This record gives sequence, structure tokens and C-alpha cells, in this order.
Amino acid sequence: MRLAAYRQNGATRLGLRDSGTLRDIGPFPASSQGFERLAQDAATGAITPGAVVEGAVDPAMPVVQDARIICIGLNYAEHAREGGREPPAYPGIFFRVDTSLAAAGATVSSGGISDKLDYEAELLVVIGKGGRHIPEDQALDHVFGYGVFNDISVRDYQQKGAQWTPGKNVDGTGIVGDEIVTPEDLPPGATGLQVRAILNGQVMQDANTDIMIFPVARAIAIISDFMTLRPGDLIATGTPSGVGYARTPPVWMRPGDEIVVEVEQVGRVSARIG
Amino acid sequence: MRLAAYRQNGATRLGLRDSGTLRDIGPFPASSQGFERLAQDAATGAITPGAVVEGAVDPAMPVVQDARIICIGLNYAEHAREGGREPPAYPGIFFRVDTSLAAAGATVSSGGISDKLDYEAELLVVIGKGGRHIPEDQALDHVFGYGVFNDISVRDYQQKGAQWTPGKNVDGTGIVGDEIVTPEDLPPGATGLQVRAILNGQVMQDANTDIMIFPVARAIAIISDFMTLRPGDLIATGTPSGVGYARTPPVWMRPGDEIVVEVEQVGRVSARIG
Repeated sequence: MRLAAYRQNGATRLGLRDSGTLRDIGPFPASSQGFERLAQDAATGAITPGAVVEGAVDPAMPVVQDARIICIGLNYAEHAREGGREPPAYPGIFFRVDTSLAAAGATVSSGGISDKLDYEAELLVVIGKGGRHIPEDQALDHVFGYGVFNDISVRDYQQKGAQWTPGKNVDGTGIVGDEIVTPEDLPPGATGLQVRAILNGQVMQDANTDIMIFPVARAIAIISDFMTLRPGDLIATGTPSGVGYARTPPVWMRPGDEIVVEVEQVGRVSARIG
Repeated sequence: MRLAAYRQNGATRLGLRDSGTLRDIGPFPASSQGFERLAQDAATGAITPGAVVEGAVDPAMPVVQDARIICIGLNYAEHAREGGREPPAYPGIFFRVDTSLAAAGATVSSGGISDKLDYEAELLVVIGKGGRHIPEDQALDHVFGYGVFNDISVRDYQQKGAQWTPGKNVDGTGIVGDEIVTPEDLPPGATGLQVRAILNGQVMQDANTDIMIFPVARAIAIISDFMTLRPGDLIATGTPSGVGYARTPPVWMRPGDEIVVEVEQVGRVSARIG
């Protein structure tokens, strides 16, 4: 099942996308409680799409208001090495806040503070069932679906202080794809999928989710070890090698650039640098 | 003006505390929009307390649902040095999520994952007026008030990976005082106030907000440089030296311990280790 968050007439709604047709399901859930009901409906086959959506729609973010955006850093060995680190035994975990996100098709800028904008192609996990201390062997039961994320980073701000937070939380830099693909349409744990970043038509990152150091089930177990996950929470699973800052010479995204991130079988999301 | 968030009959409300009496103001705002109205009322003297609150109340967290909890690390030179770092030119900024917070009087535990619980006494800033790129010389106009925070940290989880996030986000470890003191009752920028942590009656941290590397106005300017602040957002301004992990031998909080954090003229918050 391929779900899509969309905006029409000022409202954010959820639809079912099938062979190019979008059928309305209802308002996008406002909160984790609403998302939990959606996840239960999805699990029991109780999602019943209604009328075909007519007219123009904009892509929206499939993000509830109380979602936490939990990001896994250093999850691909070659990306850790290109940044001068050994592949870690425990991931670098950080949060993004809501103001740092933007929907597919957004125009991204640093707000005048930096010209060091860099792409990061990532598989996104959407939690359907919350919990704490979730065992790795049950963790995939907590996944609602998978999406696409571009964790655009402002590299000089990422390195200004002891923590990456500023460079990962510049307003409107984390691009969330509008579509969520439910697990039955993908390999277990979304393994074996190519993750790519394409800058102005040129492939810059191209790696397989199989080589994640902390695959999806492990990441859920690691996060829920210390905090309670909720329905609607998002886990950005980290980016592979090929980012701009680690290239010689470095590649920074410039105004007018188009950056596309795609995850095989899941979808793609584009943004423009402004 | 000393405001207090309190719970009675299952509802979270806001009151005015004066000479030991609590007068009800109304429901605690649910969101940043509601908090913005509250801040406007406070600025124009339009807050009119009603009846004296009778009966037992519990302290509540003065935190709106969409608040971001933005924490400044390494803001006191001696604390940076006790952790083996030089005082930084830019703070280590990290986020806490809602599940990591608890109200005054809470019983705190790691949920069985660690016995390395450590206190961190901090002055808390509550934002009343949002914005981005807030100049330092106007930043104090954006402060709604000041509170008290105990940024209880699970030290082994803080050091497990490349980021502090896990050790700062164990469920229910960040203790938020129920009271907010508005700026007219304090020195400008809450300077010149002693910040203390007291463990089982023994003073463990005792320093003055005057020695912050990034005082309140500077912290607001630094944060709003990269992200848009909203009414109701919280800024935890960092802890001075004297934390448990940096002592010889280290001091870890144990079940049954009582930990109190106080900020002079602002208030105090206690918690028990469970």
C-alpha cells in the first residue's frame, strides 16, 4: 500500500496512490493518537479509500504534530570513514525539530547564514506502534511504513560546537517525502534497496540498505532502549558515502540546484536550493 | 509575577503564586499559539488571577505540547574543564524530547538500563515571543520568564555514541520546575543568581549565572540564528561544575536519593531517585 500525504484547499489529507491515481482516505492524523488508529486500521485491512482526488494537490509531510524526528548518524561504514571516523559500535543519534522540516518540492536555504548546504539521502522509517525496550526480533512489528528523507545539513553549523544539532536544524532543511509504503510491499526491514542522491541529474550517493551498520530493527531496539517511541515518530536511518563535504574538492549545493533523493521501491523526493 | 503550572482534577492549569497563595488564571495553554496570547497578556498587564485554589494540587510542567527543549551544553568554563574540554567558542546544543521530561517531585529512574544517573542544576528560560535571527541586544524582549531545570543525565548513554542525545533523553529524567518568574522580578537576563544542586542535603553545585560563557541574550541569538523560536520553547542554559561523574570518586545518584536544584530568586525543584 502506497499512502501519500497531500494538501488541497488548505487541509492536509491522506490518500492511497495506485497506478497514478490518488484516492482520499481522510484527514491526515493530527497527533500520535490519531496515527495509532490509522496504523491499527492499516494492520486490519480497514483502510477504505474513497473518491479519486480531482484537481491539483501539493505534497505534504506525513508527520503528526507530536512526532519526534530521530536521526541515526554514521550508519554506513564508508560514510563514517569519509568523515574521518571508524564505523561505530553505537550510532550517533540526534533529533530534528519540526521547524527544520519541509515537504517535497520545497525551496531550501540556510536563511543567509551559510553556503555549506549538503545533501544526505536516507531511508525513513515511520513508527506505527510505540513502546520502550522493544526487542530487536519484534521491532519490525512496530513499523508502519517506509519513506524517503533528505537530511540536508549545513556543514559549518554542524561542526561549530560539540554537537551536530545546529547544522541539522536550520529551518526547512530536512525534506520529507509525501509517500509512505507499508511493509508488505517491501523486503523485510526494507533491506536490499538502493538509496541515491542525484544532484542536477548526477548520481552523488548510491548504496544499498543492506550495508547499514544498524539495520531498521536494530535501530528501533537501540532507540527504544532509552526512550519510549510513539506512533508517528520518524527514524531517519542515516546516509551512505558520497556526501558533498567529503569530496575533493567539496561539493556544496548552490541556488538553482535540484537535489533528488530516491529509495528503490519506496519513492523519491526533490527539492531546489534557493 | 510568579506563575505556577499545577494539576488538579486531571487538568493542567496556570496560577499566580503570591505569599503562599495560589490563584487560578485559567487552563495552561495547550500550544505555542495559546502561549503567545498568554505572553501578550502578561506584557500588557492583562493577566487577572481569579479565585484562590483550594485543595491539593500537584506541580505540573509549564510546557506546551509543541515546545522544543533546547539545551546549551558547556556553558560554564569550569564544567567544560571538569569534563576535559576547553571552554568553547560555540555551545554544544542538543534537544530533549517531551518523553524525557517529568514534573517536580517525580521519581526518576533509567528504566533499568544504567546506574550512572547524574544531576545538572540549570536556569531555564521560557520564550514568550518567537522569531529567527533575533539580535542579542533585543533578545531579552523575547523572554517570557525564568524557571528551574534539573538536566538529569545518564552518563554512560551520553558517551555511547558520537552525540549526547541518548543520555539526555532517557524517559522522565529532565525535571522541569512548575514555577516561572517573569523578568521584571529578576535582574536583567537573570544574571547574578546562584544555581545549586543539593543531593541528600549536601551542596554539590553552587555557581553564579554571571559566569555563563553564553548568557541568556547571547544564547537566544545563537539558537535563533539557525532556527525559528516559538512562544513556549524552553532553553536550558547549561550546568556549572560539580557534577557527579567528574568527581573523584564519581558520585552517582542511587535509589532513595533526593536531588534538589535551586536558582536564587527563581525557585527550586526536587526529585527522588527510584
